[in-house]
Amino acid sequence: MSTPNPRIDLAGDSPAESYRRIRSRTVALCEPLSPEDMTVQSMPDASPAKWHLAHVTWFFERFVLQPHQAGYAVFDTAYDHLFNSYYFTVGQMYRRPRRGLISRPGVERILAYRAHVDRAVAPLLERADDTIRFLVTLGLHHEQQHQELLLTDLKHLLAQNPQWPAYAAAPGPAAGHPAEAAPPTWHGYPGGVTEIGAEPGGDRFVYDNETPRHRVWLDAFEIADRPVANAEFRQFIGDGGYRRSEWWLADGWSRVQDEQWQRPLYWQDDLQHHFTLAGLQPLDPAAPVCHLSYYEADAYARWAAEQVPGARLPTETEWELAARDLPLQGHFADSGVLDPRPAAGAGLRQMYGDVWEWTSSPYAPYPGFQPLAGSLGEYNGKFMCSQLVLRGGSCATPAGHVRPTYRNFFYPHQRWQFSGLRLARTPR
Amino acid sequence: MSTPNPRIDLAGDSPAESYRRIRSRTVALCEPLSPEDMTVQSMPDASPAKWHLAHVTWFFERFVLQPHQAGYAVFDTAYDHLFNSYYFTVGQMYRRPRRGLISRPGVERILAYRAHVDRAVAPLLERADDTIRFLVTLGLHHEQQHQELLLTDLKHLLAQNPQWPAYAAAPGPAAGHPAEAAPPTWHGYPGGVTEIGAEPGGDRFVYDNETPRHRVWLDAFEIADRPVANAEFRQFIGDGGYRRSEWWLADGWSRVQDEQWQRPLYWQDDLQHHFTLAGLQPLDPAAPVCHLSYYEADAYARWAAEQVPGARLPTETEWELAARDLPLQGHFADSGVLDPRPAAGAGLRQMYGDVWEWTSSPYAPYPGFQPLAGSLGEYNGKFMCSQLVLRGGSCATPAGHVRPTYRNFFYPHQRWQFSGLRLARTPR
Amino acid sequence: MSTPNPRIDLAGDSPAESYRRIRSRTVALCEPLSPEDMTVQSMPDASPAKWHLAHVTWFFERFVLQPHQAGYAVFDTAYDHLFNSYYFTVGQMYRRPRRGLISRPGVERILAYRAHVDRAVAPLLERADDTIRFLVTLGLHHEQQHQELLLTDLKHLLAQNPQWPAYAAAPGPAAGHPAEAAPPTWHGYPGGVTEIGAEPGGDRFVYDNETPRHRVWLDAFEIADRPVANAEFRQFIGDGGYRRSEWWLADGWSRVQDEQWQRPLYWQDDLQHHFTLAGLQPLDPAAPVCHLSYYEADAYARWAAEQVPGARLPTETEWELAARDLPLQGHFADSGVLDPRPAAGAGLRQMYGDVWEWTSSPYAPYPGFQPLAGSLGEYNGKFMCSQLVLRGGSCATPAGHVRPTYRNFFYPHQRWQFSGLRLARTPR
Amino acid sequence: MSTPNPRIDLAGDSPAESYRRIRSRTVALCEPLSPEDMTVQSMPDASPAKWHLAHVTWFFERFVLQPHQAGYAVFDTAYDHLFNSYYFTVGQMYRRPRRGLISRPGVERILAYRAHVDRAVAPLLERADDTIRFLVTLGLHHEQQHQELLLTDLKHLLAQNPQWPAYAAAPGPAAGHPAEAAPPTWHGYPGGVTEIGAEPGGDRFVYDNETPRHRVWLDAFEIADRPVANAEFRQFIGDGGYRRSEWWLADGWSRVQDEQWQRPLYWQDDLQHHFTLAGLQPLDPAAPVCHLSYYEADAYARWAAEQVPGARLPTETEWELAARDLPLQGHFADSGVLDPRPAAGAGLRQMYGDVWEWTSSPYAPYPGFQPLAGSLGEYNGKFMCSQLVLRGGSCATPAGHVRPTYRNFFYPHQRWQFSGLRLARTPR
Repeated sequence: MSTPNPRIDLAGDSPAESYRRIRSRTVALCEPLSPEDMTVQSMPDASPAKWHLAHVTWFFERFVLQPHQAGYAVFDTAYDHLFNSYYFTVGQMYRRPRRGLISRPGVERILAYRAHVDRAVAPLLERADDTIRFLVTLGLHHEQQHQELLLTDLKHLLAQNPQWPAYAAAPGPAAGHPAEAAPPTWHGYPGGVTEIGAEPGGDRFVYDNETPRHRVWLDAFEIADRPVANAEFRQFIGDGGYRRSEWWLADGWSRVQDEQWQRPLYWQDDLQHHFTLAGLQPLDPAAPVCHLSYYEADAYARWAAEQVPGARLPTETEWELAARDLPLQGHFADSGVLDPRPAAGAGLRQMYGDVWEWTSSPYAPYPGFQPLAGSLGEYNGKFMCSQLVLRGGSCATPAGHVRPTYRNFFYPHQRWQFSGLRLARTPR
Repeated sequence: MSTPNPRIDLAGDSPAESYRRIRSRTVALCEPLSPEDMTVQSMPDASPAKWHLAHVTWFFERFVLQPHQAGYAVFDTAYDHLFNSYYFTVGQMYRRPRRGLISRPGVERILAYRAHVDRAVAPLLERADDTIRFLVTLGLHHEQQHQELLLTDLKHLLAQNPQWPAYAAAPGPAAGHPAEAAPPTWHGYPGGVTEIGAEPGGDRFVYDNETPRHRVWLDAFEIADRPVANAEFRQFIGDGGYRRSEWWLADGWSRVQDEQWQRPLYWQDDLQHHFTLAGLQPLDPAAPVCHLSYYEADAYARWAAEQVPGARLPTETEWELAARDLPLQGHFADSGVLDPRPAAGAGLRQMYGDVWEWTSSPYAPYPGFQPLAGSLGEYNGKFMCSQLVLRGGSCATPAGHVRPTYRNFFYPHQRWQFSGLRLARTPR
Repeated sequence: MSTPNPRIDLAGDSPAESYRRIRSRTVALCEPLSPEDMTVQSMPDASPAKWHLAHVTWFFERFVLQPHQAGYAVFDTAYDHLFNSYYFTVGQMYRRPRRGLISRPGVERILAYRAHVDRAVAPLLERADDTIRFLVTLGLHHEQQHQELLLTDLKHLLAQNPQWPAYAAAPGPAAGHPAEAAPPTWHGYPGGVTEIGAEPGGDRFVYDNETPRHRVWLDAFEIADRPVANAEFRQFIGDGGYRRSEWWLADGWSRVQDEQWQRPLYWQDDLQHHFTLAGLQPLDPAAPVCHLSYYEADAYARWAAEQVPGARLPTETEWELAARDLPLQGHFADSGVLDPRPAAGAGLRQMYGDVWEWTSSPYAPYPGFQPLAGSLGEYNGKFMCSQLVLRGGSCATPAGHVRPTYRNFFYPHQRWQFSGLRLARTPR
Repeated sequence: MSTPNPRIDLAGDSPAESYRRIRSRTVALCEPLSPEDMTVQSMPDASPAKWHLAHVTWFFERFVLQPHQAGYAVFDTAYDHLFNSYYFTVGQMYRRPRRGLISRPGVERILAYRAHVDRAVAPLLERADDTIRFLVTLGLHHEQQHQELLLTDLKHLLAQNPQWPAYAAAPGPAAGHPAEAAPPTWHGYPGGVTEIGAEPGGDRFVYDNETPRHRVWLDAFEIADRPVANAEFRQFIGDGGYRRSEWWLADGWSRVQDEQWQRPLYWQDDLQHHFTLAGLQPLDPAAPVCHLSYYEADAYARWAAEQVPGARLPTETEWELAARDLPLQGHFADSGVLDPRPAAGAGLRQMYGDVWEWTSSPYAPYPGFQPLAGSLGEYNGKFMCSQLVLRGGSCATPAGHVRPTYRNFFYPHQRWQFSGLRLARTPR
């Protein structure tokens, strides 16, 4: 391990409290689910809920207990194969697209696995040295990521069902905001040499892919005060957005044609309703548009540039610069409302929460990037190719999980995340 | 309906008793299964156990209750879409390869559906006229077919699991038979004009595809007294069976190469063990070889012909002629041993039960074939192309389900059924 | 070789004359083609024209010259790999879907190959014993088959070109027939035990798959006096033929949906024109419908049965019985008109030529079938699975190639052959 | 068009001379090819030679003649469909993977098309205003790109042929260099704010994707004096390079497994020979390794970092900084040796020519990038996603085509270009 962070600080409580809080949250997310719901894999990109439950537990067993808890008895030796995700150096894993084929262990057995591991981790937390504190913190952040994936994968699964089943009750209509989003306003920033990213080994936890802090040159830019809203995206569609090639990247246009895209994932063909974790619901015109691929976000920006000269997606540097002095508040999963809400108030809003914001930055290592040593170095660095960076977290992200330097990443065609966009522009 | 069979006679008990016995058997088959086990679809050809439970119930609801029970309240209108299999004239069905994506309704709800339908069918059985008796009989035979499919699909599912889970306890070793099968002996039949098939409207239930009884010309032939045994198939493998093209149909050889076949499905690479519904078990050299595709059965026969001149697969006419005077006894699923057993005793054995026997006969309509009228005519006739006939039932077939004229059919590449072979030969 | 036919009798001329005539015909077929035309493979089922030229030549080199011409110098040792088609026992062949990737040898070199082989075969023909006469005859029949394939493959290739290029000049309109085909009349035959097929070793050449002559039981039947015409098939389309599942086999209906079939291959969407080897041409309503898959032919027959009770496709036995006493005349490729023509005259017409007629008979070995010994046994027997028999030859078949017992065979989804249908029916 | 470059300066000759020289070079490249060679498409990424000949000509017809030559008679209106590549705004193009299905127009007709267009362009060159000069220059650069693609596509095609045909004679062994490449030395550069890219509208032609010139922050770095050599790459293989996941990006490792990569494309399994445009040839251990995907280049660099701390691929900024003061000389296609040669001499060598060098930089727009207006803006900008930048040109690139700011780009899995790598490292 190159430079572990010495502290567990997931909201300031003790390691044991953090552990208990986050681990039990994962189980709580599954409470509305049947064993059947937790078993199915709806596409190769997604995983069954029970796989998530097991995989995050395996992470603690494999990286915390096995190396650091003398005499720890492995729960089931087959789990190294079944619940490894992509740590090739640990061994060959059961292939991802086949995760839905494993009916056993069932949910009950996996909950027993969780209990077994939790019992073994508990004493370690009492006497945790820096290494263990770091590994546990990493494991908890990892578990939070899978909490979000569990929800996004579940949404995709339920959407396959012609009966539109609901996971949660529908929230009441959001109060205190106008029916339509006000036109965007623009916040400007000067150019120059600046620094982004995080120093490894600092006081607060960061992933290795956020490091090291490094200098970049940045030209002056402006950024919109809120994400693009459903009503705006509906205009793009009305303008032939999915029928006219001129706004699309070549790969994106191929995708539109091959997969017959005509609207965002989960929108119904009336363009007035969408599938949510609360079942089929009316689309709120003022809420941020969501479940866009990068291709759609980028096409929207090019279309928008015909009205707003220079409009485009922001780079991740621009986004970070604009976000870093804002309070780390927003609409996260803890609210229980698993759908983005309209912007309220004024100023630069919704940088955190609601929807992940596609940036135009390819996901690449920062200059001088050093992955964690050993298998944990496979966590992030192995994926630094062909993906793009998203920033800011979503309404499905656990509160406390993201930060200004946090880098999420997906392939440009993927749409099942809570992903939207915010426009930037270059002053002329 | 062209010519319904007037009687329900599934082992001679009353309609109500037959109904209760067969319907409860289906549920009993699922007793060892968790909801997780019952939800997963392991390949497009297979279906989840809970889909089978629902589909056979939908059959009664759609073809018995809706047309014949005044005031019947449909349990859930969505089920017409979800649990229709291939009755296109009823409406568009949820696509077969996606059956495993439907986590809801769950097992509990499907059991409630079964109870709802059973309650509604009960009074009909008391006052059943010929049409209803026929439809219920058809529904029960249909349900028995799905009982077998449920087991074969489950076996395929559990085989995906690297932990080799068991569905049932292993039977003790079979007694009263030699360790190796004795060399086959041959039973001869003269040629001439004969009749096969069944007359519709007779005393006993038959499927439409077994009708009409019709004349055929048959040359003299001989048939082996038992199916090919594991030890014999191992010799074929040892002789290069999966490496030498000369014994294979062109399509079969492509399949061998594309899918890297090297042994029967479920055999382990030591050629000494195989996966069974009782987990990984030693291969009994004297038991019939099982889980062969037609291509493998046919290649084996061509290989065998190098020792036994004229050896080949029987036609379905030959098989029926040899079988029709034998008692309808054998090793069926009711024994609880879900694996073929070695031949015991002497004479023409195991024509019924143990393994379905591939014949060389393409599945085609008999001369003058008339499918049932309406949607039920889609049951069999729609599949009379590109498949081959298997005869005799297997260790996974419910006792009482098959008869001499019974025609099962699968595509030549399919291996997940309990399918083996018996040799025939033309006297020289 | 089991029982070679002693005579070469391709229209009664001498072996040397037959050889010269048929071999030069193949080259003549390519005269209107550029090297570019002769190089491209438009789909895996098709082959480039230059591959056909080479493959039929390799057949003579490999099966006639190498074993029977002492001191024969192989033209190029690589050709055993490049131009073998499916004789696995000869060695591994270059994979069929990649035949279009081989730009070299070019056309000129392949013509040199042909000349080289022809020079070597010539002296053999002078002193031919029975074996050589049989092999040469087989090679010439084989070459005639590839003459037809060359034309069908070429038609498919040119049809990919949005400029609709023509291979040959359009014939003038056919004279002497009414604009619309007269309603079909029916020819009846009694039932009983009859014989079909051919005896190997007889006076005239037959393929092994036509043997042996054998007894069959046949019920009384009637057959239509002409193939189904374009105008009739247009009615089927107008009646929802490609939109209503009820007339289709299950596999056929999947194909209709997956590949969006809406009309016969090569028909334009106005249903008034079709692509031909003479470019885009008006559809003659009275001409036989052509380029149907089995699924389409079968669906048409089921649709027709709603008007004509008992209408269906004939079996190959029925077809052979009806055809065997007719003169072996018809519209073959030698006419230069590479498109079926309307029926003229009266009586049972167009049994030979115009369009191959799908029968409902799966392509299976006749009872007692013995393939030729050695590699030549792979010619036919290896394909006796999952295909259906077509009878009678087409407008692209060389005159003199077919006979009453001739069995052609294709998969039920294939449409690029000159394939149509004739109805049969069972008297009531 | 935003800001056209006013001058044609392809080596300083007049517009008419440049046009004639470059256009005739394309035809000369095809001289050793038969029409058959020029027709085949070996994979969807490649195009037939005759398509290249036609497409570059269509570019002049569509973008120069049609808008700027009054009364110009289009050669064939179908060519807009057949020979458009990716200018969606011009109209729907014939799909790329099907380019090999078009046998007509043939080579001769395409040469006539070239002559027709050349005759029409000639007078325009005499009286060329800035716009026309720019468009012609763009067309000539475009044609040079296709000259290189023609060679790489041809190499891929000939490699499918088991006879290993040669396009050109083998060069004699390279003289004046040691048998093994000397260990690399490192050239260092200081960090700071620097500028890369080119200003549009300058004196010399650049593509829009090289603009605008812009500031970047760069940390100090070192770069190797020569590309990685075959012998070095052989060590990587010997060390388990294709068997050990630890050095590979996750997507790369999937590719290695799915496509069974075991060595660079065109290497033979003895690791001593490779297929070249001069047929099968011995691998020169001192020559740059070639035909690597990005995944392989990146994996090599990670492996190398175990010996050379900090070794990695350079960024495109680093590469440009190191290259920009070097003379624009190297081993280009004009030498006639279509294979990279060993490094000769001393100092920073082979930055231009021999092999395209993968950089770690995703292909993205430079800050403030403005694509050309109209359809020509589709030339580069549409592809700025999921690809990586390569720099410096190769032995198949026409001399005079590249420059320090030139950005080539391919997907990370693509291997059929003349692509290799040079290491960089961060000083510690």
